[in-house]
Amino acid sequence: MDELLVSTVSDFARREIAKVAEKIDMEDFYPRELIYKMGELGILDPLHFGASLLDAMLCLIEIARISGSVALIQDVQGELVNAPLRKYGKGLEELTDELAKGRIIGSFALSEPCCGSDTTALKTTAKKVRDEWRINGEKMWITQGLYANVFLVAARDPDNKISAFLIRDSQCVEREKVEVEGNRGTGTAKLRFSECEAELIGNWEVIKYALNIGRIAISALSLGLSIGSMEEALMWARERQSFGKKLIEHQGIQWMFSDSMAEILSVRALLETAVNAFSKNWKESEYIVSSLKLLSSRIANQIVDRMVQILGGMGYAKSTRVERAHRDVRLTRIGEGTDEVQRIILSRHLEKVLNSL
Amino acid sequence: MDELLVSTVSDFARREIAKVAEKIDMEDFYPRELIYKMGELGILDPLHFGASLLDAMLCLIEIARISGSVALIQDVQGELVNAPLRKYGKGLEELTDELAKGRIIGSFALSEPCCGSDTTALKTTAKKVRDEWRINGEKMWITQGLYANVFLVAARDPDNKISAFLIRDSQCVEREKVEVEGNRGTGTAKLRFSECEAELIGNWEVIKYALNIGRIAISALSLGLSIGSMEEALMWARERQSFGKKLIEHQGIQWMFSDSMAEILSVRALLETAVNAFSKNWKESEYIVSSLKLLSSRIANQIVDRMVQILGGMGYAKSTRVERAHRDVRLTRIGEGTDEVQRIILSRHLEKVLNSL
Amino acid sequence: MDELLVSTVSDFARREIAKVAEKIDMEDFYPRELIYKMGELGILDPLHFGASLLDAMLCLIEIARISGSVALIQDVQGELVNAPLRKYGKGLEELTDELAKGRIIGSFALSEPCCGSDTTALKTTAKKVRDEWRINGEKMWITQGLYANVFLVAARDPDNKISAFLIRDSQCVEREKVEVEGNRGTGTAKLRFSECEAELIGNWEVIKYALNIGRIAISALSLGLSIGSMEEALMWARERQSFGKKLIEHQGIQWMFSDSMAEILSVRALLETAVNAFSKNWKESEYIVSSLKLLSSRIANQIVDRMVQILGGMGYAKSTRVERAHRDVRLTRIGEGTDEVQRIILSRHLEKVLNSL
Amino acid sequence: MDELLVSTVSDFARREIAKVAEKIDMEDFYPRELIYKMGELGILDPLHFGASLLDAMLCLIEIARISGSVALIQDVQGELVNAPLRKYGKGLEELTDELAKGRIIGSFALSEPCCGSDTTALKTTAKKVRDEWRINGEKMWITQGLYANVFLVAARDPDNKISAFLIRDSQCVEREKVEVEGNRGTGTAKLRFSECEAELIGNWEVIKYALNIGRIAISALSLGLSIGSMEEALMWARERQSFGKKLIEHQGIQWMFSDSMAEILSVRALLETAVNAFSKNWKESEYIVSSLKLLSSRIANQIVDRMVQILGGMGYAKSTRVERAHRDVRLTRIGEGTDEVQRIILSRHLEKVLNSL
Repeated sequence: MDELLVSTVSDFARREIAKVAEKIDMEDFYPRELIYKMGELGILDPLHFGASLLDAMLCLIEIARISGSVALIQDVQGELVNAPLRKYGKGLEELTDELAKGRIIGSFALSEPCCGSDTTALKTTAKKVRDEWRINGEKMWITQGLYANVFLVAARDPDNKISAFLIRDSQCVEREKVEVEGNRGTGTAKLRFSECEAELIGNWEVIKYALNIGRIAISALSLGLSIGSMEEALMWARERQSFGKKLIEHQGIQWMFSDSMAEILSVRALLETAVNAFSKNWKESEYIVSSLKLLSSRIANQIVDRMVQILGGMGYAKSTRVERAHRDVRLTRIGEGTDEVQRIILSRHLEKVLNSL
Repeated sequence: MDELLVSTVSDFARREIAKVAEKIDMEDFYPRELIYKMGELGILDPLHFGASLLDAMLCLIEIARISGSVALIQDVQGELVNAPLRKYGKGLEELTDELAKGRIIGSFALSEPCCGSDTTALKTTAKKVRDEWRINGEKMWITQGLYANVFLVAARDPDNKISAFLIRDSQCVEREKVEVEGNRGTGTAKLRFSECEAELIGNWEVIKYALNIGRIAISALSLGLSIGSMEEALMWARERQSFGKKLIEHQGIQWMFSDSMAEILSVRALLETAVNAFSKNWKESEYIVSSLKLLSSRIANQIVDRMVQILGGMGYAKSTRVERAHRDVRLTRIGEGTDEVQRIILSRHLEKVLNSL
Repeated sequence: MDELLVSTVSDFARREIAKVAEKIDMEDFYPRELIYKMGELGILDPLHFGASLLDAMLCLIEIARISGSVALIQDVQGELVNAPLRKYGKGLEELTDELAKGRIIGSFALSEPCCGSDTTALKTTAKKVRDEWRINGEKMWITQGLYANVFLVAARDPDNKISAFLIRDSQCVEREKVEVEGNRGTGTAKLRFSECEAELIGNWEVIKYALNIGRIAISALSLGLSIGSMEEALMWARERQSFGKKLIEHQGIQWMFSDSMAEILSVRALLETAVNAFSKNWKESEYIVSSLKLLSSRIANQIVDRMVQILGGMGYAKSTRVERAHRDVRLTRIGEGTDEVQRIILSRHLEKVLNSL
Repeated sequence: MDELLVSTVSDFARREIAKVAEKIDMEDFYPRELIYKMGELGILDPLHFGASLLDAMLCLIEIARISGSVALIQDVQGELVNAPLRKYGKGLEELTDELAKGRIIGSFALSEPCCGSDTTALKTTAKKVRDEWRINGEKMWITQGLYANVFLVAARDPDNKISAFLIRDSQCVEREKVEVEGNRGTGTAKLRFSECEAELIGNWEVIKYALNIGRIAISALSLGLSIGSMEEALMWARERQSFGKKLIEHQGIQWMFSDSMAEILSVRALLETAVNAFSKNWKESEYIVSSLKLLSSRIANQIVDRMVQILGGMGYAKSTRVERAHRDVRLTRIGEGTDEVQRIILSRHLEKVLNSL
């Protein structure tokens, strides 16, 4: 583990991100300046600068402890967009560098109004006009969609196969804000591509790669939200009096923490397993990644919910990290493939999993 | 059951409340005009106009299907403030009538910054200055606190006993807005009472009465949020395509509804049991009321969570009832005594409950 | 409520059934003498002697507090076999009286090795030989199957419709013991009918009637197991020392009871709703009955599990009611239609349920 | 990973243990011959023959897939008794070798009738008579207690400190069989030590070491029971028809497997984390070990419960591994410290855990 990197990110989160975290949420404020800074510091996309996947995930956890929104931005910019571009793109060194440095903003455009997590049903098309690809269609729930300069887009080619394309000129894109419950300030949008010029990056494998690394990242984000909420709740429980003693002295409250601790540790362990499996052979790691995504988001939702309960009214008030986390964390069971999609994926691997045990 | 009353409320909710429900939430908009209208129609406080407690709760369910915020306003105005005033107040006929008609607004001021659900620890004092009571202290999480003209306040008298007082002149009240996750537009506030003139309404029994009828009401509100969410999710599941068929045709989705149906029916049955027990002998009904409060809010949170999942991204977007219900419903496990407080109450009645079975 | 009847049953259970409950379980002992006694006292089949359905269920609860096995025998003898015979049979007054008095033993033979809860797939046939019906086929999981003198059997007639038949002469029946985890001593068997003479009782409606009244009864049985376990656990928790105080003084333990109390009360309320609905119009009550069956068995399993945990090692030792209940209660999520079957039934009534609320 | 070792154990389990697994359970049969054989093959106590802790746990998983009882015997003989003797005993090479080879049987005697998981309250005493230690007291829930030749016993010395003693001559021991729900055939007993000669092995640290390695082992056992049940259930679900298709083709059933797979993988990952932490610095690993114990047993109980549901009636019938696992697995939340004890341990490490993340 690159302790220097992780502690740099942790310090940055507690010093810089903390300052704007509430504003990002309350005002649906997109933190463009913060992104520049993170880019300059090399922490917007640690993978780009040579960090291991595990270290990048540990950084993401540190960010999510403070702000789910900034963590989601980091995730999209670094894992969903830049990682596949680096791996599958050709001659994109300059672009990926700009992305990593936060000078340009990228979106991963997969979901569509028609079909959400059922990605194979998508309708956006890619057609060839002379030597150039042209993209037409609508995308939905696109993080940073309001602000992105470039788009990694999944589209159906003339052979009805889904491939990955890069749109570098965003003038052809109509953007419509979508207001959401949590992870606010990330520029969630509905997009309409009209005759957008595009470059082919690769086939469905690119999308699948992005989804899998993205599922690992959303799991790290879940962990960070859980841990951040527990931190705040533990501080509260140590100060707050209730029924004649400190909240933390009530066994019922202690056990909420105990269960949460154990669950966090199991997700943390599975994260490492998944990262190792992904790094070794990402195509074979799908069932571990889906397991991680399913469990980390479930457990994070449970934990944050318990922490709301520990804070009581304060956990329902806008001024707390826990309240924000309560809304942010709900996304993790929907984005990057819903619980149901993970279950469907897992059900295709029953034999393989049983044999792996 | 007074079918005419309930269907009147249902129609009103779908016609009038539906129009402003989103605005109330998005703009933190207090629907003063709507309250007047409901008052005029006799549906702001059905109990006042002779409705049975069950019918009043059925009305509350109808309102909560459409708007948790308006339901909470109805609950506070009718059950938490006006019901105890009618029962324990003397010579308040005019006041309670004005409250029922929505011409004046009332708040129930029990919780304090110090101690939330641990109501016996409250610090607000009532002292006697000549023949007049004077109230000093701070209150927290007070629904309608920003707008109330009168306050039913719990305060500690010179003998250190907690009694219930009525403050009719609000000039002595400082109000501070508290921004919360859900049930927005209900004027949640922190209040500071400084030398407020007050009338004694009664002893702790008044507060206990308010709490118990309020717990029944919050349970009805929970039911309404659940049912409203299920309605919207069922419509969605019947239209939405996913993996080659309607969402509703997936067994996994069907079973989410099945479990939700069964759970709703059990809460509905328990509501009736609690209403009967309360109506017959409210002091003896505490353990049934706490059971209802604990379960109805737990089940409502589970159901709304499932409905969010069924809507997927739409369940996370601001335009849906389900998204709003997801935030509104979280309050039900905190307000009117947290889960933990209900468990503590129940643990005092173990023997009695076992013998009652 | 017929308090005399219920308290008679309660006394009998605590005096007479308690004596043999452990032997029934440990030795897989079928309590023939006890059945005679219950028959003579009119408590083997209270419905037969004019008890209301609610009172009959309250009796069943009292029995199940002490012995799940005897409760299951009562249920089969009274609700599954005799209730449909009384309702649909003609000229069976003598037989139903003998059954109610425990002089002859009856089984309800629906499940088959092929298809368990998927009752519509059953293969047992009824053919007409001259004027007589002949039954051939295999049945599985038949309570009292080892000892029954008469059988109410579901079989497929020449038109491929499933009807209900009565077999009064058991010589044609081969019986094979099936050893099960709980509810032991009830004579669970696999049966083979070979050219058994039979009388037609009615069409599928008879089976459906039996299933629905049986689901109500299994729910009462679930309640009884829960309550009996809580009784024993509460006694234990009041005596047992742990970490320097009584077990019951630990908040974590108190809350296990609190949750259990609230859940029991909700099932108890739903039982009454279901009984009323069934009594009024049983064909329309299916969705309420399935809800009750699904929830009562789920909750009973949770509660008994918690009570095992409270007893610790003792809850795992053969000498306690809780250990026995732990095995008995598991049946309730399988018998009379599994959880999954109830969910399938409920999913067919989504609209109806939503509109009923 | 020592694949040869693990596959040897796996083969042995499927060939030899499978033959007697049902008899062990049904007849409460203690498999003395099998233990000899396992000893000879070096798989009764792999740690003794140099296996890593992880490999030993993988072996335990293989055994538990087939028989929880044999796994428990392996656990007690190898981890609870022999591991601490090897680590803390002096001049015990011959004894530990005999234990590893299954020539003598050992019990770990900690729990007492008074106080179960609250081990610090134990009453058994060790006094010094001249130069010899004498043990007096009662022990409860002692696996292999009926058959053990030697006992590793926790007792309170004259200074009121709890230390670990070895009793090699069992003539002073009165044994009383305790009949339990699952893990039958393991010789569970209540023991009475009367003036038993003993050797001091070490202080409380020895007990704590045994408990922690034992908690890891019971977690492996939990994993094995889960996996074995899933195997059987998957075979069933692939053959069984229901509602017109294979059981496994129902989405509701698939999802039960999907959730189970994900959960298993998380426990498997946490097992590895705990083994590493324990191997590195076992005293610091307590909170990870308790987390593992709490989660592995919870998840195993959930999974086995689901598999019972998938098998339906068959899951309740004595002939299936799943039925047996359902009873065996319940022990895992009680033995080696209940859930509640793990939660209490974890609540003492809240800060440490949060900082470790």
